[in-house]
Amino acid sequence: YSSGDVRRVTLIPGDGIGPEISAAVQKIFEAANAPIAWDPVDVTPVKGRDGVFRIPNRCIELMHENKVGLKGPLETPIGKGHRSLNLAVRKEFNLYANVRPCRSLEGHKTLYDNVDVVTIRENTEGEYSGIEHEIVPGVVQSIKLITETASRNVASFAFEYARQNGRKCVTAVHKANIMRQSDGLFLSICREQAALYPDIKFKEAYLDTVCLNMVQDPSQYDVLVMPNLYGDILSDLCAGLVGGLGVTPSGNIGKEAAVFESVHGTAPDIAGQDKANPTALLLSAVMMLRYMNLPQHAARIEKAVFDAIADGRAKTGDLGGTGTCSSFTADVCARVKDLA
Amino acid sequence: YSSGDVRRVTLIPGDGIGPEISAAVQKIFEAANAPIAWDPVDVTPVKGRDGVFRIPNRCIELMHENKVGLKGPLETPIGKGHRSLNLAVRKEFNLYANVRPCRSLEGHKTLYDNVDVVTIRENTEGEYSGIEHEIVPGVVQSIKLITETASRNVASFAFEYARQNGRKCVTAVHKANIMRQSDGLFLSICREQAALYPDIKFKEAYLDTVCLNMVQDPSQYDVLVMPNLYGDILSDLCAGLVGGLGVTPSGNIGKEAAVFESVHGTAPDIAGQDKANPTALLLSAVMMLRYMNLPQHAARIEKAVFDAIADGRAKTGDLGGTGTCSSFTADVCARVKDLA
Ligand SMILES: CC(C)[C@H](C(=O)O)[C@@H](O)C(=O)O
Ligand SMILES: CC(C)[C@H](C(=O)O)[C@@H](O)C(=O)O
Repeated sequence: YSSGDVRRVTLIPGDGIGPEISAAVQKIFEAANAPIAWDPVDVTPVKGRDGVFRIPNRCIELMHENKVGLKGPLETPIGKGHRSLNLAVRKEFNLYANVRPCRSLEGHKTLYDNVDVVTIRENTEGEYSGIEHEIVPGVVQSIKLITETASRNVASFAFEYARQNGRKCVTAVHKANIMRQSDGLFLSICREQAALYPDIKFKEAYLDTVCLNMVQDPSQYDVLVMPNLYGDILSDLCAGLVGGLGVTPSGNIGKEAAVFESVHGTAPDIAGQDKANPTALLLSAVMMLRYMNLPQHAARIEKAVFDAIADGRAKTGDLGGTGTCSSFTADVCARVKDLA
Repeated sequence: YSSGDVRRVTLIPGDGIGPEISAAVQKIFEAANAPIAWDPVDVTPVKGRDGVFRIPNRCIELMHENKVGLKGPLETPIGKGHRSLNLAVRKEFNLYANVRPCRSLEGHKTLYDNVDVVTIRENTEGEYSGIEHEIVPGVVQSIKLITETASRNVASFAFEYARQNGRKCVTAVHKANIMRQSDGLFLSICREQAALYPDIKFKEAYLDTVCLNMVQDPSQYDVLVMPNLYGDILSDLCAGLVGGLGVTPSGNIGKEAAVFESVHGTAPDIAGQDKANPTALLLSAVMMLRYMNLPQHAARIEKAVFDAIADGRAKTGDLGGTGTCSSFTADVCARVKDLA
């Protein structure tokens, strides 16, 4: 791409507050003159002839064309027939690395003020394999699947991420003392990749120990890489340290495609009332700009968001402010223009 | 038992700092006139004729006789041949419930001052089944096993514990949105037990959400019950909130027997130097006294320990004090006698 080209991004506005916060991102990107054109698409599952619900073809086609998506929160359909759509999107495009940076925000005080960690979660297998059986009545097994390929994909991603983002240390988080073979395989691949990145420090730590240490002194961690479920847990824990899922971004990245998403819920109780905080989706969109090699646009929007929160006047209710989704968006737009 | 009888307890002093902190407990129990006689025993694994290492017979016999044990930290033998001894003890005697209360301590300030939660962890199966296979090179599966029986044992234990300890609410922690069948079974049994305890409030929550909420406001939780791995993680996280594994007790309880243990490491770096903090083992011994229906002795020793920490003069180095294992023990002994 040459940086002047307009690039198309698939936009999945999502359910509940999804449309409002997606509109906020679009406005701010316009104010920032970001060279992005949006292709909005619906992912409401469609029932196939075989009775199984699937992501609509149009969405899949668009993702294959655009390679990059931005996604708001989706309702998880109830019932046994279909998987969570959030997960379906990750698996469908083999988005093997889920990246969640958590940084303390000026202007949103929590108990911690020195958090700056990035969790990198294997995003396609592990405890999320979906393979389960009832062996005999009252005895169920779920299979945790660890493959060399997916482990290598995410481990190599983590070290590459660390190098490209000026990070110093990658910690592999595991329970190989208990799951010697599966977590053992994951760990051995992390070691193999660590050897290829002598400029990045490598550590290994048990998940339980990391949780204990994280709540006592998060500053001891930098980049953390781990199997799927551990990442689910640790990324939420870390988000909690800095203010929750309303202020933390997320990116699902594969070899061919990437989808950036806010991981908070659809908040049906406040949907359509102009109360939603668009920060998580905005910061996810900033990650997306960096991924698309538009670092200047990313830096400008990111600074505008951080400044708006630090200033506080337009902060939304969830952060203890009196702003609305629109007033916060207008504030960020004004700052983006000032920074031009 | 009539309360005047002396009761025998199997004592596994353990490795590293284990012997020192076990001696501290014995001294304090003597000062408190606790009607306990100790049967110390070694659990260093013995290699059988088949080449497999096992817990020595003497230890197993003693546990079957005494039914109650107190255990210091054990080194995990390195190598593939044998499982962690810590786990072996839990499985050997079907100690299906692991109980870990975490309470903020006066005199040991952390970021949190309102923690009072109890994690109750299924202790025999789940992700700790030990069943793993390499299916083809580079593809490993680990089996998470959830049974109705073990789930019912721990769920019913949790509600009974809540009732007997004046607790108001039990939260079942799960990922049944992902592991629909295994965590689904666990959850359905929790619901079944909840119906038998209308005096106890029942809630359900995703593990990731609990981790996020726990670091933001632990006061919203009371008793939490969950499958094995989730308990491993959440109990360490909660311990972190109040000062770590050096100050939090643990009990492994089954139908026939119970083993109370400190879950910190063996700390070989300070072993034999009179620097170890006996608090975790002491508070585990206090849980043991309550389990043995000796609530007055329990309350007296517990108060002495809390007072000694609150006073601070004899606090050990890990808590920022200048005390030694012996000076802290002497302080607690003096307080126990004063309280008589
Ligand atoms: C919504 C749910 C299926 C999902 C998960 O468990 O991965 C969520 O918790 C997340 O972390 O994105
Ligand atoms: C030592 C280890 C095997 C153990 C576990 O994973 O259960 C420990 O972390 C614990 O919580 O008691």
